Order: sequence, then C-alpha cells, then structure tokens
Amino acid sequence: MSQAAPNPVTVEVTRGPLVESRHHGSVAVVDDTGRIVCAIGDVGAKTFPRSAIKVLQALPLVESGAAEALDFDDAELALCCASHSGEAVHVKSARVMLMKAGLSEEDLECGPQWPKRLEDIAELIRADEKPGALYNNCSGKHAGFLGLAKVLGAQTRGYVDASHPVQQEIKAVVEAFTGETLSEDVCGIDGCSIPTYGTSLTGLARAFAIFGTGEGLEPGRAEACERLYEACVNEPFMVAGTERFCTDVMAAFRGRVFVKTGAEGVFCASVPEKGLGIALKCEDGATRGSECMLATVLEVVLETNEDEAKVLDHFVNPPVETRLGVKAGDIRPATGFLDALKADLA
Amino acid sequence: MSQAAPNPVTVEVTRGPLVESRHHGSVAVVDDTGRIVCAIGDVGAKTFPRSAIKVLQALPLVESGAAEALDFDDAELALCCASHSGEAVHVKSARVMLMKAGLSEEDLECGPQWPKRLEDIAELIRADEKPGALYNNCSGKHAGFLGLAKVLGAQTRGYVDASHPVQQEIKAVVEAFTGETLSEDVCGIDGCSIPTYGTSLTGLARAFAIFGTGEGLEPGRAEACERLYEACVNEPFMVAGTERFCTDVMAAFRGRVFVKTGAEGVFCASVPEKGLGIALKCEDGATRGSECMLATVLEVVLETNEDEAKVLDHFVNPPVETRLGVKAGDIRPATGFLDALKADLA
Repeated sequence: MSQAAPNPVTVEVTRGPLVESRHHGSVAVVDDTGRIVCAIGDVGAKTFPRSAIKVLQALPLVESGAAEALDFDDAELALCCASHSGEAVHVKSARVMLMKAGLSEEDLECGPQWPKRLEDIAELIRADEKPGALYNNCSGKHAGFLGLAKVLGAQTRGYVDASHPVQQEIKAVVEAFTGETLSEDVCGIDGCSIPTYGTSLTGLARAFAIFGTGEGLEPGRAEACERLYEACVNEPFMVAGTERFCTDVMAAFRGRVFVKTGAEGVFCASVPEKGLGIALKCEDGATRGSECMLATVLEVVLETNEDEAKVLDHFVNPPVETRLGVKAGDIRPATGFLDALKADLA
Repeated sequence: MSQAAPNPVTVEVTRGPLVESRHHGSVAVVDDTGRIVCAIGDVGAKTFPRSAIKVLQALPLVESGAAEALDFDDAELALCCASHSGEAVHVKSARVMLMKAGLSEEDLECGPQWPKRLEDIAELIRADEKPGALYNNCSGKHAGFLGLAKVLGAQTRGYVDASHPVQQEIKAVVEAFTGETLSEDVCGIDGCSIPTYGTSLTGLARAFAIFGTGEGLEPGRAEACERLYEACVNEPFMVAGTERFCTDVMAAFRGRVFVKTGAEGVFCASVPEKGLGIALKCEDGATRGSECMLATVLEVVLETNEDEAKVLDHFVNPPVETRLGVKAGDIRPATGFLDALKADLA
C-alpha cells in the first residue's frame, strides 16, 4: 500500500488580523483517459461520495429508457440529481414524478426533512403542517429510483436496500465510471437510507471526467450522460435552490461545468471543455470548506467571463459577518493550496 | 519563537466501517499556579476565545458592585455568561435585566438572531413576529454590559466599542487572568459586535483554573468569581438551553465543573476540585468536534457517578443517524488524542 499523503490546510477563515479556523482537504483532478492531472492530500483514501454522485445514480433511470417511458422532463431529471432545498417547486415536481410512476409520497423511503430556508419552514408552520418525505432533499432521487423499479417490474418496497435491483444497477454504474470495485467492507448507510460505497477521490474524478465527455462509453450510455448533463445545466434551480452553490455556479456557467455537492464536505464536478473531472473532500465535512475549495479549483482551471468570475469570487472569498451584517473577516483559499493547484492546472 | 506543534486529529466521524470525516484540534490544561499539565497541538497560537470567556466578561459587573446595585439574581447573572438558545425564559430574563437598568431592547447593540430551536422559531412565526436583539444568544451578556455602563455612569451608547469603559474593564480582567497582554494587533470583531482579542490556549486555561479556585486573587475578585461560578452551576439552563452541552453537563455535575462554549469550536472549563482549567479549539470551528473533545477531557480528568458518566458519554460518542433515526455511524475521540490525554491527565 502506498503511504497516504496528509491532507494540507486548504481553506482559512479569518477574523480581523488572525486566521481563526482552518480546513484541511484533498482534491483529485483526473482527465477522461484516467490520467491524474492534480492530486492534493490523501486522494487514494476511501471516501463516501454521498450525494455528489446523484447524477451517476440517476443514469440507470435514463439508460434503461425508464425516464422516457415515464415522460420525465428536464426539470424532473435535474431533480433526480438534486440535493434540493425543499422549496415549493422541488416538492411539487417530486410529487408529479411519483404520480407519473403511479406512486405517492408514502412510497418514499428517504424519511422527512424540514426545508432549508426559513421562508419555506415558515410556510409549513403557518399551515400547521410538518414536512413529509417529499421535502427530503433527496426526494427527486428517490422518485427516480421508484420510477426505475416500476419500469423494471421490480418490487418498489425496499428499493433502498443494497440487494434491490435499483441499487445493484447503480453499483454497477459507479464501478464502471470510477474503475473501482465497490465492496460491502466500505459500505455505509446514507442519510436517506440508501447504501453509499467508499471510493477514492481519483476514481470519483475519473467518473466525472467521463460523465462530462462520454469518452470511451458505448453510445447509449454516452447519450444518457449527455441527457442528464443537459437537464442539470438547463434546470440548475432544480438541482439545489435559492442562493445555493450548485444552482448559482451552473446557472452562471451555462453548460460549461456540472457541479454537485455531497454531505460531509464532498464535491464533484465535470469540466467537459477541458476533459476534466474533479472530486474533493473537506476533511472535517464543512460545506464552507468544500465550496471554497471547488470554486478555487474552477477559478484556476477555467478562463471566465465577468458573470462567471463574479459567482466564483462569491464562493472563493465569502465574507464572515457580525449579526448586524458588518464584515468581520472572510473565508479564503490557503496560499499553499492555491499554489499547488496553479502548479498543476494553470 | 517556538516551533508551532501541528494540531493532531482529535475527533473522528464514522459511517459504517469507515472514518468519514476528521477534526483536528488543540487542548491546554493548566493548573491554578500556571503550570501546564497537558498541551496537545498548537496551544501557543493566538486564538479568539469568542463566547467561551463570557464569565470573565461578566466579572466587572459583579466585582464593581453593579450586579448587586441592579439586583441581578442568580438566573440573571447566569444569563450574563450565556450563549442562550433564545427560548422564552432567556428572552424574558434579558428583558427584565434591561428594565432593572432603566433600559430596553433598543439599547442592545448585538443585532437580532433567530432562536436556535424550531419550536421557538415556530412561535415567532405563528405570532407573525421577527426576533429582535433580545433573542440574540448574547443578549444577557449585553444587558450586563449596559447595566455596568449605567452604574459606572458611562454613556450606554457605543458600549460595544473597544474604547468604551466597559470593554476596557473587561480587557484588564482578561489580561489579569490569562497573564497575557491583549493587543489591537490580534483583535477582531465578535459576531455580537464587541472586540475579541486573541490569546493562547494556555493563557485561557490558566484563566479558567484561577476562575474556578480563586487562587492568588484578592478577596473581592475571588468572591466575584465564586458568585458567577455559583450562579452558572445553579442555573445551568440560563447559560445555554434545552439539550445543550453547557446546560446538560453543568446540571449533571452539580457544581463540580463550569463549562462554556464559544463560536468556531472553542471551549473553556474549570475543574476546581482538581485546580485545573481547560481551553481547547477544534481547528475547523465545528461544534461537534469541540463538544466531543471537552467531554473526552472531562471523562479522563474526573471520576464520575452514573448520571455524570451518562451525560459525558452522550457527548463523547454521539450517534450519526439517517433521517429516519437509524444509526449510521458515530462521533468519537481519535485513539491518539485519547492516549495523549490519558498520559498527562489520568
């Protein structure tokens, strides 16, 4: 076994003249031939990709023809790949997807979740309601799983179990794209009850390079990738929501990049024009760390126009504020991290 | 300058068979003579103590006689030292404190904040209200500042400024207890708009050792420390709230320990029966990290009865759960961290 590289400090959080907090992390950038272009930190460590691979988990739905059979449109396909904020349009769309499959909220096995935004929480409270499983950030993904189960003729109940045909299909896709064998020895339960398998960041980055370009895929699979890529970049609001990284970055870049966050500080991205895939993890699981990291990688990799640069800057260097909105410090990439990225990617 | 020790991994977050995320951190344990008993990581680095030193910030209020002049009771003094959750009793008590000083919510300069718990947020929404500054987790501290300003005959407006007599008194106290000079070069603005000065963790730990025993203090100051210590351990709910670390630990330990959290992963504690003070920081700022760290230190330092052990266990090793409440992993101290603590403290 190779010696694991320690994860360097990648992000600093300042307050006044001091660095107050630090995030460590690891980043792999791989091209669609599998060549490692940049490796920072322990990129070989088995990492749970969590929600960052929802687009790969949605692939069997499209490739099998189930998405077409169920008449899922772009917005609905984007919702299959989403960690949405539980805003009205997300909840409504997930409900429609289930209806198209002849199912309902009761068939979802992901559990309930309150919406992300206070406005949406308030709406439920005013109506004296509690959120059901449709509000779960994964409800679109699960509606897609159920749709696939239905079209495959599989039992819908228990679709979250590792042994269910839907999860078996997904496992095969992730193995093919990462080039790694997924093992029960590195399998955990995700927050929405489905299995999550550990893979290396290099494997994940390879998967997203291939997802973005279709390199080496047989035509039906390449077409399915393109369908999902287009759905997400055309309907970025469905992938996340108001003032969310994935939505704002994909909206600004108009098809140039696909980005998707996962719990515990994971991020994956495709940059087809460069033939690159990116996978990273903020070691401590912080979203403020993983967002700064991915925005920094994109800033180094891509030449940007004014709109694109503005959105990236917002995530590369967000302010830290007092409760009165006065700037007290900021979040920024660590110098060593930025230098390491530039050495390999600029 | 001495070489800074790197901050080791102190806390692991598991999911199934893997460690999914890791927190780095630093811990200083110092006795009330200033002797360093345990030092893990970069304990000399200037660290913003944030809300972890609220009890020291409340000392001038008591020592000056202002607390007595204003007839603040135990619950109100505990609220001066609190990062409360904005529950009804906290808000009401802060309002009463201001009334006793002849002031009102409008005099608070900390800014507004939504309560921590969904139940309390819901109550505001149902009443079609937004939270004011009384709901700010620091409102009790600020009410104390205003009370002190009033009794000192100082202008109340601008009491958050570093040059205001209240902040100057506090600075002198923190310097005396930490044994360090606080400098504008390491001063930031806290979330509630007051100055926060960087100090070493060893200085902070020394401060809390002395706060807990009164060692070396002149009688009036020692008495003021005892008054605040007793107020907090007698009214632990006022210091935080429902299902909060500070409240639950102080309630279970019935006067054996004083503990106080601060933003960005800081924790301070006094263990008078051992003559010890503890100061720690989770490097990335995560509360789940700092809570596990302090609970682990307390578990190593103290012999505990069943109730005390149960509460500590809950924070040393909390479960990670799916949205349906199924256990998916846990949070736990890293073996190396636990061994290092035991070597110095067991």
